[in-house]
Amino acid sequence: MTLPIKLYTFGTPNGHKISIFLEVLKLAYTVEKVDITKGESKKDWFVKLNPNGRIPVIVDPNVKGEGDNGGLVLSQTGAILQYLADTYDKEHKYSYPFGSIEYYKTLEYLIFQVSENGPIQGQANHFVVFAKEKVPYGINRYLTDTKRIYDVYEDILSRNKNNGSKYLVGDRYTIADFALYSWTGGLKLLDINISQWPLLSKWYQALSEVPGVQEGSKVPA
Amino acid sequence: MTLPIKLYTFGTPNGHKISIFLEVLKLAYTVEKVDITKGESKKDWFVKLNPNGRIPVIVDPNVKGEGDNGGLVLSQTGAILQYLADTYDKEHKYSYPFGSIEYYKTLEYLIFQVSENGPIQGQANHFVVFAKEKVPYGINRYLTDTKRIYDVYEDILSRNKNNGSKYLVGDRYTIADFALYSWTGGLKLLDINISQWPLLSKWYQALSEVPGVQEGSKVPA
Repeated sequence: MTLPIKLYTFGTPNGHKISIFLEVLKLAYTVEKVDITKGESKKDWFVKLNPNGRIPVIVDPNVKGEGDNGGLVLSQTGAILQYLADTYDKEHKYSYPFGSIEYYKTLEYLIFQVSENGPIQGQANHFVVFAKEKVPYGINRYLTDTKRIYDVYEDILSRNKNNGSKYLVGDRYTIADFALYSWTGGLKLLDINISQWPLLSKWYQALSEVPGVQEGSKVPA
Repeated sequence: MTLPIKLYTFGTPNGHKISIFLEVLKLAYTVEKVDITKGESKKDWFVKLNPNGRIPVIVDPNVKGEGDNGGLVLSQTGAILQYLADTYDKEHKYSYPFGSIEYYKTLEYLIFQVSENGPIQGQANHFVVFAKEKVPYGINRYLTDTKRIYDVYEDILSRNKNNGSKYLVGDRYTIADFALYSWTGGLKLLDINISQWPLLSKWYQALSEVPGVQEGSKVPA
């Protein structure tokens, strides 16, 4: 019997990546809300789980881990998504077999999301929305690069025209798509209109209709 | 027979991650220098290899890939390192078996490097060294966060005291360590003294003596 995975999360694009994929995979999970606006992810008990002090974190009790958590403790959305795909998508509905070319192209675009799309759009959010000081240099720098990154995604989709430009890699949605979804949804925070990227707009709309995506986007309640 | 891997690179921390690991694994490879200061990574022929227009990229002719490159084309340092470890370190000298807890902890810290250490230190480099305008807000923001991230690495090493705090994960160097090495070396560009992190200082010194690390740090010639 598979025991429920515990998800420590909050209602951010990075949190939603994981709840979305758990829902899509129809995995049992319990949610512990970690209110980052109250500094809860920087508390000792949480830093013990993730030295970097950020949500999301999963604890999977189905794997015997070290320490007193009694399970595999994992942070970093890219690592969590890869772990969930490898472990719980054995039929490869949303992944490719380990070792295949598509497996590594999925990883390439997943890492593009976590190492450029997320960090740069996150900095744009900071300078445009959250910074207490108005810093035009920062606003311009990160808005420009955020748009460039979506130009790259449009290009990636255009290269997959054999599959109707519907997926980032091959003929199915993968963690590369699910990781990008909630950040793309966050473009409205920056007043960036997604319609300037026609393939990406269609991709976003279609992905929003995949069972589990809406449910995962509402976690934690 | 294993054919040489082709590495498109330039002398940056991200480029060195790959040449270091290729040297450590003693893999045959050829180097094509892509001068990013002359915009070569934004040229059409290169963007065809990597839609994101950044070095490094590898082409592995031992895997039959799509397109006219005749091999697996891969970018994003995190994906390249994972691919090389999975494919060419079958004896697990510098990796853990696929599916093990240590495999995913390695991925967690690798992704911490590519999604926080690299991007944030890269922004610090921009504001401190390269920006034509002096922007105190940016300088302060990214220097502060860069130091915080190395505090996290010091914490990670301290948690591995069973192994003498010598490795990020378990009892051997992995791609999580090799990915961090060249960025740690780049701290001097920011006038940040590594000696404030005693475990990290020892880790850096020891890693610099691993056969291949010095050689890989000089690529391209």
